[in-house]
Order: sequence, then C-alpha cells, then structure tokens
Amino acid sequence: MQIAILIFDKLTALDAIGPYEVLSRLPGAELTFVAKQAGPKRTDTGALSVTADRSLAELTDPDIVLVPGGPGNIPMFKDEEILGWLRDAHVRTTWTTSVCTGSLVLAHAGILEGKRATSHWAYRDDLAKLGAIPVAERVVDDGKIVTAAGVSAGIDMALTLAARIAGDEVAQAIQLGIEYDPEPPFQAGSPEQAPDEIVELVRAFEEQGAVRTG
Amino acid sequence: MQIAILIFDKLTALDAIGPYEVLSRLPGAELTFVAKQAGPKRTDTGALSVTADRSLAELTDPDIVLVPGGPGNIPMFKDEEILGWLRDAHVRTTWTTSVCTGSLVLAHAGILEGKRATSHWAYRDDLAKLGAIPVAERVVDDGKIVTAAGVSAGIDMALTLAARIAGDEVAQAIQLGIEYDPEPPFQAGSPEQAPDEIVELVRAFEEQGAVRTG
Repeated sequence: MQIAILIFDKLTALDAIGPYEVLSRLPGAELTFVAKQAGPKRTDTGALSVTADRSLAELTDPDIVLVPGGPGNIPMFKDEEILGWLRDAHVRTTWTTSVCTGSLVLAHAGILEGKRATSHWAYRDDLAKLGAIPVAERVVDDGKIVTAAGVSAGIDMALTLAARIAGDEVAQAIQLGIEYDPEPPFQAGSPEQAPDEIVELVRAFEEQGAVRTG
Repeated sequence: MQIAILIFDKLTALDAIGPYEVLSRLPGAELTFVAKQAGPKRTDTGALSVTADRSLAELTDPDIVLVPGGPGNIPMFKDEEILGWLRDAHVRTTWTTSVCTGSLVLAHAGILEGKRATSHWAYRDDLAKLGAIPVAERVVDDGKIVTAAGVSAGIDMALTLAARIAGDEVAQAIQLGIEYDPEPPFQAGSPEQAPDEIVELVRAFEEQGAVRTG
C-alpha cells in the first residue's frame, strides 16, 4: 500500500506528521513524502526542515494521497503540475485525503466539485466558492475523499482511515501505541468552545497569513 | 526565548513535532532543532527525514530543552556528549522537558533523581530503576522539569507549558489555531481504556523495539 504525503515549503508540519505517525504504522504501508521536487522543505514557522524523498514524477500511482495545509498551499492553487498530478493520482487512489487547508488544494484541482468536505475552521467557507459543500465536522468523508479540519485533526482522520483500511483492532493498537488519550488543558480547540475574544484574535491572525482562495 | 528540541536518528517524529507546533507559536520563541551533529535525521519508521539546523555545541544555553522519544533514545543512554550537554543545559534552563521515552534519557543524565516523572505507559516503570518516581499522568511536572506520556502527549504538555510561559489566553489561541479539539475514534488511547488483547499486542510489539533501560 503506497501512501504519498505531498509536502512543500511553508507547510504546517503537524498536518503531515500527525497522519504520518498513524498511517506509517499500518501493516504493509509504504509511506513516502513527495514534493514537486525532492529535497528539504522548510515549514511555515521557518524553524524546521522536512525532506521529500521523491518527486511527484517518481510516484505516480499512490493508493493513498494526503495533502497537508499551511500558507504554502497558496502557490499550489495555480500550480498545474501539482494540480494535474493530484487529478491523475485521484483517478486510481483508494483514498484521497487532506488536512486543514490542504482541502483547498484538492478543490482547486477540481476533485471536490459537489463533494462534502472540511478544512481549518477559519477557511472552511472558502470551500463553497470552489464548488465543494463545506461541513463543520472534524473528519468528513464523501466516497473515497476524506478531509480533516485544522492541523491536529489529521490524527483523528488518520485513525478513522486506519480502521477502514485495516480494521478496528489495528487502529486501536496504533492509537494505544501513540498513547492518544488527549487531555487538552483548555476547552478552546474550536470556535464554538473558545472564548469570543480568542476566536477574534486567531481569526485576525489567520486573515494576515491568509490561505485565502479568492 | 531559545527553545531547543534535541533530535536524533530513529526518533518518533510526533514526539517532537507536536510540541514544536505549539511552542514555535509562542511570542518571542526561537525554536531550533539540535542534534549531536547538525543535519538530517531519519525517524524510527525510516519514512521521514527531519533536519537539525544546529549541533549541540552551537546551542549551549537554551531556555527550554525538549527530548523526544523513540528507539533512537537507546544509544543516548550512554552517550556522554549528549548526557553532559543535557546536564549543563539543565542548570540554566527555565524548563527541561521530555516526551515519551525521552524522559529515560533525562533520567540517564541524572536529571530525574528523586523527581516525579512520566513516560510512554509501556516504559513508565523503567523510570524507577533510574531513580525517578514514575507517575501515571499525561503531563507531570516537578519544579522546572515537565515530562509527557507517550508520543501524542507532547501536544498536551506543550499547551500546558505555553500557558505557564505566556498565559492562558495565548495558550488558548494556539490551541484554537491548531484546532486541537480532539475526537479520537476509539477509547483506546491508554492501557486502562483499551481492550486487554490490544494492550497485550502493543506491549509485545514494544518489547521487540524495546527502549528498555536495563
């Protein structure tokens, strides 16, 4: 089972690494970080470099594709080499997936036309402008397309996917292996739960970095 | 505020990347991935390479140190260059922290002598052999030492630390920014919750990879 995680400069690392940590533990998984050009990619904070071992041209037939989010999504919206690779791969994938604003890249590729999907809460409505149907859930599936909400939601998405691929027992073993028994110190992980002033603060911050789509 | 995340070959990526995603967003944070030698480090699965931008010798005075876990911890137990760097850094840190079996490295450095600490559930009792006091909690602090349970617990630890460093509002904004509103698909993230046969399966698996300490 070939799993391709598409990375790029200015990605949000946890979007990719959360699902990687889960999916790489699936029996038979061959997980590869791919990029337009192979080599190191600098994350959105500038503090970390992760490496794509292969170029898109070297891995054209993945069973699972995952597109993470981050400000580096923006140039991808018009990058025909990347969008074309996604469209071609999607024809043959078992699962086509995204985390955070990675879904906006799938949408720009035309893959989400008329499909239910999600994204980071601050960008979710942008999906509608691109022909998708925004859904305010943490993990959204529509056929073989599975999209996750912001950043950390990729862990929940990957565990959900692990269960579909390999059964509940395997998914539970992975969850126990990574001791995923979350205890967030605050009830502030969604705009519904967080205090209003915190929501406004983060929304203003996101507007600056803006993975806006037009 | 200098934050040093110590990486190495065969680290478990999420141990490092979870806290990185939180701590790098703190106002004034200068977060650096460091290693005995700078350069790319291959994670425990073999599928990912993350890069240390600086060597230990180049960053001797961090305010926060974080040691992630993984099978790559084992050679560190006897690596005097690494243990000595940790001991020296710990004298001046504001916070000395670990995720998963990273706490066993701190213990081998003598930093956890008589201190309350935690680790991945399958290795927690090993802390006692090294003079620490194992505590079955997700995030454990004892003075300026903060240790987290397995892998994904680093996110909770980092948010807890973020609140202490920059206040609850900043920590909540970070939590909302990474949309950390976890919805694990199973109640299987701890040995108390997971079915017995899953616990035995994962324990047997861990015995093989064994970050055992003697």
